[in-house]
Amino acid sequence: MVVVMTPEATPADVEAVVNLVQSAGGQAFVSRGLTRTIVGLVGDVADFEALNLGSLAGVLQVIRVSVPFKLVSREHHAARSVIRVGGVPIGPGTLTVIAGPCAVESPEQTLQAAWMAKSAGASMLRGGAFKPRTSPYSYQGMGEDGLRILADVRSETGLPVVTEVIDPGHVDMVASYADMLQIGARNMQNFALLQAVGSAGKPVLLKRGFSATIEEWLSAAEYIAQRGNLDIVLCERGIRTFETATRNTLDISAVPVVQRLSHLPVIVDPSHSGGRRDLVLPLTRAAIAVGADGLIIDVHPAPKTALCDGDQALTETDIREISDMMASWPPLMGRMLAASPDEVGHVPAGV
Amino acid sequence: MVVVMTPEATPADVEAVVNLVQSAGGQAFVSRGLTRTIVGLVGDVADFEALNLGSLAGVLQVIRVSVPFKLVSREHHAARSVIRVGGVPIGPGTLTVIAGPCAVESPEQTLQAAWMAKSAGASMLRGGAFKPRTSPYSYQGMGEDGLRILADVRSETGLPVVTEVIDPGHVDMVASYADMLQIGARNMQNFALLQAVGSAGKPVLLKRGFSATIEEWLSAAEYIAQRGNLDIVLCERGIRTFETATRNTLDISAVPVVQRLSHLPVIVDPSHSGGRRDLVLPLTRAAIAVGADGLIIDVHPAPKTALCDGDQALTETDIREISDMMASWPPLMGRMLAASPDEVGHVPAGV
Amino acid sequence: MVVVMTPEATPADVEAVVNLVQSAGGQAFVSRGLTRTIVGLVGDVADFEALNLGSLAGVLQVIRVSVPFKLVSREHHAARSVIRVGGVPIGPGTLTVIAGPCAVESPEQTLQAAWMAKSAGASMLRGGAFKPRTSPYSYQGMGEDGLRILADVRSETGLPVVTEVIDPGHVDMVASYADMLQIGARNMQNFALLQAVGSAGKPVLLKRGFSATIEEWLSAAEYIAQRGNLDIVLCERGIRTFETATRNTLDISAVPVVQRLSHLPVIVDPSHSGGRRDLVLPLTRAAIAVGADGLIIDVHPAPKTALCDGDQALTETDIREISDMMASWPPLMGRMLAASPDEVGHVPAGV
Amino acid sequence: MVVVMTPEATPADVEAVVNLVQSAGGQAFVSRGLTRTIVGLVGDVADFEALNLGSLAGVLQVIRVSVPFKLVSREHHAARSVIRVGGVPIGPGTLTVIAGPCAVESPEQTLQAAWMAKSAGASMLRGGAFKPRTSPYSYQGMGEDGLRILADVRSETGLPVVTEVIDPGHVDMVASYADMLQIGARNMQNFALLQAVGSAGKPVLLKRGFSATIEEWLSAAEYIAQRGNLDIVLCERGIRTFETATRNTLDISAVPVVQRLSHLPVIVDPSHSGGRRDLVLPLTRAAIAVGADGLIIDVHPAPKTALCDGDQALTETDIREISDMMASWPPLMGRMLAASPDEVGHVPAGV
Repeated sequence: MVVVMTPEATPADVEAVVNLVQSAGGQAFVSRGLTRTIVGLVGDVADFEALNLGSLAGVLQVIRVSVPFKLVSREHHAARSVIRVGGVPIGPGTLTVIAGPCAVESPEQTLQAAWMAKSAGASMLRGGAFKPRTSPYSYQGMGEDGLRILADVRSETGLPVVTEVIDPGHVDMVASYADMLQIGARNMQNFALLQAVGSAGKPVLLKRGFSATIEEWLSAAEYIAQRGNLDIVLCERGIRTFETATRNTLDISAVPVVQRLSHLPVIVDPSHSGGRRDLVLPLTRAAIAVGADGLIIDVHPAPKTALCDGDQALTETDIREISDMMASWPPLMGRMLAASPDEVGHVPAGV
Repeated sequence: MVVVMTPEATPADVEAVVNLVQSAGGQAFVSRGLTRTIVGLVGDVADFEALNLGSLAGVLQVIRVSVPFKLVSREHHAARSVIRVGGVPIGPGTLTVIAGPCAVESPEQTLQAAWMAKSAGASMLRGGAFKPRTSPYSYQGMGEDGLRILADVRSETGLPVVTEVIDPGHVDMVASYADMLQIGARNMQNFALLQAVGSAGKPVLLKRGFSATIEEWLSAAEYIAQRGNLDIVLCERGIRTFETATRNTLDISAVPVVQRLSHLPVIVDPSHSGGRRDLVLPLTRAAIAVGADGLIIDVHPAPKTALCDGDQALTETDIREISDMMASWPPLMGRMLAASPDEVGHVPAGV
Repeated sequence: MVVVMTPEATPADVEAVVNLVQSAGGQAFVSRGLTRTIVGLVGDVADFEALNLGSLAGVLQVIRVSVPFKLVSREHHAARSVIRVGGVPIGPGTLTVIAGPCAVESPEQTLQAAWMAKSAGASMLRGGAFKPRTSPYSYQGMGEDGLRILADVRSETGLPVVTEVIDPGHVDMVASYADMLQIGARNMQNFALLQAVGSAGKPVLLKRGFSATIEEWLSAAEYIAQRGNLDIVLCERGIRTFETATRNTLDISAVPVVQRLSHLPVIVDPSHSGGRRDLVLPLTRAAIAVGADGLIIDVHPAPKTALCDGDQALTETDIREISDMMASWPPLMGRMLAASPDEVGHVPAGV
Repeated sequence: MVVVMTPEATPADVEAVVNLVQSAGGQAFVSRGLTRTIVGLVGDVADFEALNLGSLAGVLQVIRVSVPFKLVSREHHAARSVIRVGGVPIGPGTLTVIAGPCAVESPEQTLQAAWMAKSAGASMLRGGAFKPRTSPYSYQGMGEDGLRILADVRSETGLPVVTEVIDPGHVDMVASYADMLQIGARNMQNFALLQAVGSAGKPVLLKRGFSATIEEWLSAAEYIAQRGNLDIVLCERGIRTFETATRNTLDISAVPVVQRLSHLPVIVDPSHSGGRRDLVLPLTRAAIAVGADGLIIDVHPAPKTALCDGDQALTETDIREISDMMASWPPLMGRMLAASPDEVGHVPAGV
């Protein structure tokens, strides 16, 4: 940490800072300039933060120079991690596609969507049974019945399942069905939920809050890690900006930035970031090219009747394009398309 | 709702929209222009939203023209509401000050802060026992012990207590101590929590998410209202913008905008929006002048040792200024300073 | 300045930083921590910035701790300035109201608007002859004819005139008519224009760019000051955020923040920030209460036919409310309403 | 346009809207709903905008459904345009790389940077002689001397030159040296400058303002087009958001969004958007993959001594990687790397 003194700070003010830091077991180095004095702090940042140095007389600014997360940081864990979900790897070396319907609506719709996902190259199935919706009058999901459908579709297709959990009280129940627990963007700072999934013994997909800085996102991951669960995959899904032409603004730069700061895998959601079907393919290509470890894509057998986010679900023509892309693009990035753990589920004719 | 067709839309495309709307029990009026055709929809918006009109061929844009909240809207409830918390009114006619420490740290600190609050004109006490913190390494609060302290301080000072709840599983327990339940900014779209406090039988203080639009904020209130609880007070506490000189940007305009859209009272948090002690007084004056129904202010007997947000807590000089302001400013706005329900708690000498 | 080294930085990396700083005539103090080393720099920041320290091996971050503006800063000019425009003071002690039509449309409209302005308590007239409009198909202003109208209305009413200039090549011509030159929000970083008005010998009203940080805004003022012109008044007029309920988000906190950083006066534009007539009165009160040195308000005798921004111009009822407010509110802030320099212009009956 | 009436609007209010629209030569269709009435307008939007419909009694909202730009829109010009600069094409079918130093500093530095650019696959040279800088104390560029250097380097290398112009009064002079005129992000809404380059007879590179919506950006292009110049290339270079890990947030989705709305080519600036050297390569790949028509990249022979933005200029290793990428990636997108018009300039040994 660095403490910047105001131009009017007295020598006594500076000494007070130094003494307080030393009393907390830290070291303080004073640099006196022409108009300002700077105090560099060495020791445990968490201790220093409790000192409220910003409240002391003569202090202009306190600048933290180390990151507020440890377990998920690359500082002490340089190698990038590979997370395995039901046998499917996510991390460097592979490109993992997760696909499925935004919301589980029926066994038929979910199964059809799963076959579409598989055609597109997906090795995992996503589907929402509990839906966090802005309006209480929007469709809220099938609940546990939806989870049962997902489990059945997994048996039939061999695809491991990732599904969202929105209530700490549901975590154990959802974990009993799912292979991976998803924390949605609106719950990224729902700390009770983060702690609950940290203790649930299943990998976690942590979406970035639409207004979260990268630092806040990694701090949220740290909450999960702190409970002993380091099987975390981060998902960039667009941030809120002034631009209204797209639902959110995909922060494509976040992928390499996070990969430098953290050892955790980072995937991209090209469906929710743009919120428009015509953007899914270009954003999928951009995500692969920027170095993402995977993708999570909305597919629905009949987007026009989808109960949730039908505007962005892909058609079968799109699926074929994605399937072609998955054959040619990952090798350019030195990656292999991740295979599903069980290849018994053959795509039936007509899908 | 209005459906805007693309310039290339065919008559059959337009007819498909009209038919779909009619099949859902609505009416559709077609306006044909030189380059575009517009279809106006009449009927139940919730029904129309399920139609996924945006997915139909030839549809450029679907514009919703009605608000997505009903119970909290002024459209059918023109009179502005007064919410009562332990006998203290919040609403038009009064200016209600809520004050107290960001975090409950000890019985002494909380009691002292409560007397400070009362000196400043407060008729309610705030204090956090469960703290949602960005980093898992920051102080997380005293939990239920903190709630007991708040209840004891209420007995001594007569001030009703508002405190934050962060886990749906804790709502009943927190409600057994508190007079009002606070939903913090990070949990504004924690829908499981909103539904839980909607059923808890206590008034709710709903802070605006730091990246929530006004429409999303009112939709969050609608979640609470839908469970039968209309005792909701809204709190503007600053939004996230590109400006870094202040912790958040107080959206002062939100107060009159929300008061036009909703019958619920709106208060302002001048402490968290600026995040700087020197801004609390000017922002408090601005909030009163813009027409806020109340304020929620951080006070701490010893800000330099505060475990949370000490940088923004007020000193005793500030308290005197606020006390003076509360004597002269509310009448300018046609308001009376709300009195605490119990005037037995005298401020002891030396505070 | 502070240079933060990466955890992997070698002693040679640190030495390279120290040597480079010393070669530029500065001093460097090294603080070695457990995981990071920090180098504090003492000397001329402008020299250090040219060194590209961020490009050196082992450098994580370069943090500037001093402000990038000098002439407009309070660091060496603690007293807040009073700027005089045609005899009207703007600064501490007074509250100065500037009012008039967004665009000059005709002699009659401008004169009527000027009398309305005077009724509202204004001591200066604003009116646009050159209008920067987002679309080339919107009304672009009357040009020099409009300036002649403004000068005539000044003669009749005694109100000094502020008007916008948008082209460096027009500055002398506009300055020959106006008492104060306005730089609009979109031109805040039009540096050629800033330099031109810095040399024009007239006071300048510098609006904040709708996406400018406070630091960028003061740096823009520094461009003007550097040409020898310190007669600058700053105007907060709302910033661009994600919220769409208002045209812009008035950053009310910017007023006290800027007043601490700079000695220049700060006024508020309640008309353009909200973009809605119903917000002008509450935001005017909030601006006075937060400590603004003045206001600039749109008035138009017939808003429904205004060629520009009619949605936000006030009616006569609003004018009376503002007039009443100007009698009672400024004294609360220890200010007097600034009088117009010439009181001969009587408001004719019927206005 | 669509006019939405308030729930309280009377039949007379609706009639007033209809009459006003008809008096302006338009048609109005009324759709009466349960709680609201909507009026659809058919005719010339520019005429309707002058009516100030939003000011009429009973009007809640006026929604514009057509875009405010015509000449640059694809609505009446479906084929995407190819712009030629000194013989180099920019548009569909090719990928055009523009590279060079942020600022021209000397003949040697510029020539060396030009050879680096050519090695990287560039067919055009960029270099700034007039630099718009946030602080007046930052390096402001060499002015006309810099333009002479650029012209000399063009003679030697055969690379056409693009350079920024910041003052309408300089346009003719800059145009006499340059092959393409650049409008920088801060000047995107400097309308006097847009009009001046619209008349200068040279192609224009129009950077997106860092806080401009896509609609504002295309409206700025329309200003240039309206003066008879349709040789415009758009450049996405990052927008301002709350995220501080990168200088700006590259809005990668803007590329396909703009390509659907406008026939003009769109290129990406991976250097200024991230502001970090380590992001240039991943963002370059992402830009190609999303479908950009070209790139503009900072290169400098000695970034550590660069007078401007040295933090983001590439090293020779990076150049080799870009060169390799340009051989393999454009064909994946059905594009050819654009060749420089004159291949006589051989890269000398040692560069």
